[in-house]
Amino acid sequence: MNNVILFTVPSVGLLGLLFSLYLAYGTLKNDPGPPEITTISRAIQVGATTFMRREYRVMGLTALLFAVFLALVLNVYVMFAFLVGVLCSTLSGFVGISIATRANGRVTFAARGGLSKALHVAFSGGAVMGMAVVSLGALGISGVYLLFDLLPFTPDPLTVITGYSMGASFVAIFIRIGGGIFTKAADMGADLVGKVEFDIPEDDPRNAAAIADQVGDNVGDVAGLGSDLNQSYTDTIITSLIIGATAQSSGGLYLGEKGIIFPLLLAAMGIVASALSILMVKTLVRNDVIKPEAVLKVGMLTSGALSLIGILLLSHFYLGYLEPFYAAASGLVVGVLIGLNTEYYTYKKPLRSIVVSSETGVATNIIAGLAVGLESTVLSLILLGVGLIVVHHFAGLYGIALSGLGMLSILGINLALDAYGPIADNAGGIAQMSGQPSEIRGITDRLDAVGNTTAAIGKAFAASATAAAALSLLTAYSEAAHIVILDIREPRVMAGLLIGAALPALYSAMVIKSVGLTAQLMVLEVRRQFREIVGLLEGEAPPDYGRCVDIATRGALRQLVLPCLLAIVIPFITIFVLGREALAGLLAGCIVCGIFLALFMANAGGAWDNAKKLIEARELDGKGSWAHKASVIGDTVGDPLKDTAGPTLDILVQLMATVSLAFAPLFMRILE
Amino acid sequence: MNNVILFTVPSVGLLGLLFSLYLAYGTLKNDPGPPEITTISRAIQVGATTFMRREYRVMGLTALLFAVFLALVLNVYVMFAFLVGVLCSTLSGFVGISIATRANGRVTFAARGGLSKALHVAFSGGAVMGMAVVSLGALGISGVYLLFDLLPFTPDPLTVITGYSMGASFVAIFIRIGGGIFTKAADMGADLVGKVEFDIPEDDPRNAAAIADQVGDNVGDVAGLGSDLNQSYTDTIITSLIIGATAQSSGGLYLGEKGIIFPLLLAAMGIVASALSILMVKTLVRNDVIKPEAVLKVGMLTSGALSLIGILLLSHFYLGYLEPFYAAASGLVVGVLIGLNTEYYTYKKPLRSIVVSSETGVATNIIAGLAVGLESTVLSLILLGVGLIVVHHFAGLYGIALSGLGMLSILGINLALDAYGPIADNAGGIAQMSGQPSEIRGITDRLDAVGNTTAAIGKAFAASATAAAALSLLTAYSEAAHIVILDIREPRVMAGLLIGAALPALYSAMVIKSVGLTAQLMVLEVRRQFREIVGLLEGEAPPDYGRCVDIATRGALRQLVLPCLLAIVIPFITIFVLGREALAGLLAGCIVCGIFLALFMANAGGAWDNAKKLIEARELDGKGSWAHKASVIGDTVGDPLKDTAGPTLDILVQLMATVSLAFAPLFMRILE
Repeated sequence: MNNVILFTVPSVGLLGLLFSLYLAYGTLKNDPGPPEITTISRAIQVGATTFMRREYRVMGLTALLFAVFLALVLNVYVMFAFLVGVLCSTLSGFVGISIATRANGRVTFAARGGLSKALHVAFSGGAVMGMAVVSLGALGISGVYLLFDLLPFTPDPLTVITGYSMGASFVAIFIRIGGGIFTKAADMGADLVGKVEFDIPEDDPRNAAAIADQVGDNVGDVAGLGSDLNQSYTDTIITSLIIGATAQSSGGLYLGEKGIIFPLLLAAMGIVASALSILMVKTLVRNDVIKPEAVLKVGMLTSGALSLIGILLLSHFYLGYLEPFYAAASGLVVGVLIGLNTEYYTYKKPLRSIVVSSETGVATNIIAGLAVGLESTVLSLILLGVGLIVVHHFAGLYGIALSGLGMLSILGINLALDAYGPIADNAGGIAQMSGQPSEIRGITDRLDAVGNTTAAIGKAFAASATAAAALSLLTAYSEAAHIVILDIREPRVMAGLLIGAALPALYSAMVIKSVGLTAQLMVLEVRRQFREIVGLLEGEAPPDYGRCVDIATRGALRQLVLPCLLAIVIPFITIFVLGREALAGLLAGCIVCGIFLALFMANAGGAWDNAKKLIEARELDGKGSWAHKASVIGDTVGDPLKDTAGPTLDILVQLMATVSLAFAPLFMRILE
Repeated sequence: MNNVILFTVPSVGLLGLLFSLYLAYGTLKNDPGPPEITTISRAIQVGATTFMRREYRVMGLTALLFAVFLALVLNVYVMFAFLVGVLCSTLSGFVGISIATRANGRVTFAARGGLSKALHVAFSGGAVMGMAVVSLGALGISGVYLLFDLLPFTPDPLTVITGYSMGASFVAIFIRIGGGIFTKAADMGADLVGKVEFDIPEDDPRNAAAIADQVGDNVGDVAGLGSDLNQSYTDTIITSLIIGATAQSSGGLYLGEKGIIFPLLLAAMGIVASALSILMVKTLVRNDVIKPEAVLKVGMLTSGALSLIGILLLSHFYLGYLEPFYAAASGLVVGVLIGLNTEYYTYKKPLRSIVVSSETGVATNIIAGLAVGLESTVLSLILLGVGLIVVHHFAGLYGIALSGLGMLSILGINLALDAYGPIADNAGGIAQMSGQPSEIRGITDRLDAVGNTTAAIGKAFAASATAAAALSLLTAYSEAAHIVILDIREPRVMAGLLIGAALPALYSAMVIKSVGLTAQLMVLEVRRQFREIVGLLEGEAPPDYGRCVDIATRGALRQLVLPCLLAIVIPFITIFVLGREALAGLLAGCIVCGIFLALFMANAGGAWDNAKKLIEARELDGKGSWAHKASVIGDTVGDPLKDTAGPTLDILVQLMATVSLAFAPLFMRILE
């Protein structure tokens, strides 16, 4: 009976994948536009493909080495799960980037037919990746689980499924760091010379880094974001089913195998809810019923409501008790509240303090942004803390795990809304570079602005879900490591906390330094081209875009492997030098400080970005003013924080927790 | 017998105070200089006195209210200890600021007689406050202890001594925040208009904020630093004796009352070691034996060596076992290593990355500084964590408390070296404003540079000692609150951790915003004066210095009370809403995230500051270059971080821990 029910999950996954293909077909059916658009569009596509290919090569080699290591120290089954995880995650990112680079130009051209038409193409493009991520995730996880459950002579699926989780984290950390360095180095390089030194607009074709900047939007914002959320999604599902297996001991009812299958069913239900909401949004947009800003929010609300109903029905009919529903629903509520808090700090009143500070120069702009970023974390962390107590009250540890899944169940449509933003942004860039009339650029700008709000809320969801999943993993690790008491006052636990708190800082510093170094090379190259290419500034000679793409590519690839290896090595060093309690403390410190820094960086960066936009929108004293120049620099400072370092921290936290759990049996064999 | 020994502590304290008076007399004996120096010097003195008087008034009123509260909910004995703590701390700060404002001009004049002469005056001035702080601290704590120990009908001194600790923290948070806002708002206001907009040098008499800036150096860097370290010093001593009383239960031998008296003896020994080292430095400087840079380092090393010998002798002869010596010595070693790490990140190789990044503009300068600051915390936190395990290994919880005391035992000379920096800096400012020849300014610059290194090391010591004291307080609180197990996996503990992690961010944001707001008012006022006062820029008419001093004063006072009250109220809310385990978790989160942020802010700020100085020192492409302008802005961004928000966090952490411990009996009465 359970297996029959379980088979519905990969089936829904397959159907979701088909839906994703259908959306892709619908997107590509649109007219790619005239040659001036397709030339640029093609250049972006080539740059992105080249970069991704080189990145996959580095990642693939490292993954193979790690797979061999897994087979040697654990077993081949974990290795297999790991490789499936790597494959599914890579595939979903690949689908996303392939469609996004093809959708960009089509959106630019569609804008000639009006806002709704452009919105429809952009949203469909984003939805392809959204559906691909959740479908491949559900398919991969349930596939691996079923395989080990059904095949005789294989170990308990719960002991190997962490391999899948490591695979997803592994891909995420590579793609996020690589794409993040690429996109921000290109963006900063383009802005620092173009906007600040030569006073030419963004995405100006004379800027040698313009194409690299566009490529970056795709490899960083689309592929990076996709792999990031794919990892959060995968981890919350896998953590829930691991905790579900032991739910009895952690304060809930005895659920048996149902505790394991329930999270998978939740995921399948979420796919259906997302698909239905996507179809609804498409219909509303096509028929031009309501404003685009409203349409996307309606889509989010509908999917949230559908998901809540789905969880309620599953809890009642499948599990037979409602506490898991309360926990998942509370998780969703906390996620929404944190999202609203994020929206407040990055779009509402606090922005004014940054705008006012820009009047007195760069220094005050930066200081105001830092203050806004710091303050924005306060309510979010309090909400997370109180939420933790509430969901634990309902369903114990299982409740904590499910609360994360509650937030991410509707990732399909959330990710569609997230990925839609960079597509719209890129469409705007193409419009600018190909010299489209200003009303086209106006439409793409408006599309972009709508995307920003939904993207910020999406990031807040991801950070909150990460916290829930990582805390559950911490508990799962301590059980696997036979830790009875984990008292903060024990010096080893406290030492772990302190050292763990340092790791997010180490990571951020590494990533920020990489972005800074690559951006500097980019600045020098763009300056050189302006100096050496005769007629470039006058628009009479084209720049050499390829060299800038190449600089960003090499800068990103050089910095990829070390952070990933560190995340894997640190748990080993900690447990063997300082002991298993220290490793648990280290995970806790890393979670707490990692979530704090991730929220701080995302919100400070978002606030600087939007303060700049607010100044640009002013009638008098807007673009080109003293305050605007200050705000452009603030935005540039925020870029590597919000799009590279910040999002990497979620993945770091998860990867370390997963590695600790996966290797706990090995550690115990050696230590005991 | 024990009482006889104990009486040596206040006696040494009194002798130390006399020594401080002797040093003050020696400093004031120097010639205050010609009228052009004394006029400016007097203006600074008046500004500082006015501000301090108004600040003391606000602080005094709040302290009285809190004292009444203490008497009502706890008892009059705690109130008494609190008031003595407030009094001693206020007094030591008052001595420091009085002598510093009088020493500044004398240093400027002494510089005519050469480097050694100026160094001698500046160092003597700083030493006055150094000796006053440690002497008054030892006197106050041992006085309160003896009083309650000897008088019949009074409670156990250990139950009221936390009142003294709260008093010191109370004064520290007021003076640090008030002085910090004043100094940085004035500094930023002066720099942003003077250096950046009008391109006039620092401390130019035409800048209306110049006097406010100088006043700020005194009220922020001298009084603020003094009260800050006074609080760390007080807390490590008091924590050590509280833990000493229960040392038996925390892994050490049974020490009886000796466990309580030992920390007081350590403090007395440290006063003697500091006094001897100060005398040695003065002799070396007066006789011009070695270079000034070397002399100060020799002073630090000598005092460290003397202190180690003293702790060894006391452990062996008084306690009769050496483990406490090992613990205190390990603490000292960890403190030195963290100091060296700080020196590395703020003066050595990492600076180059900021210097190079300044070439590509402000944004890359800021980003590089953020990365350096983040990275600098890593080794420090690891050292703290490992150090914790080591000292706990030697002497259990008592060892952790003593390790903090080991670091701060020689605070007398450390603080002398710290306070000497701003005096030299101020002397330079007076030289510039009074139009002294450039060789005078050269001498004061060199003095200032020497002071920077020792100051950074001093701050690192304070942060490390805070961590040790706060962790001990956390344990003392959990015992007082009858917490048996404090498991991280408990949702209330984890919620506390998350919420605690948010508090340092909240504080930093509050303080940074206050600085930013006041600085903006200052910018507008300086700009207004340049615009409206005819002949000001040409040097033909004087600016209105008074208005700028007034703006800084009002800006600082307005923001004083709320942060202090919050630190007191939060433990109450937490324990009654979320429970006592949540409060313990909150303290842990606050310690971990607070220390991290404090180190990050201090080091990033220091690195930006020194990167600017490095660029200024370049032959070509130095002052006035594009890179220099970028580095000036980086320095300005770092100012509120390193001198206002960062140092406040240490105090916040301590104050909350002390409040939790002091009110634990009350909480228990209500909760149980």
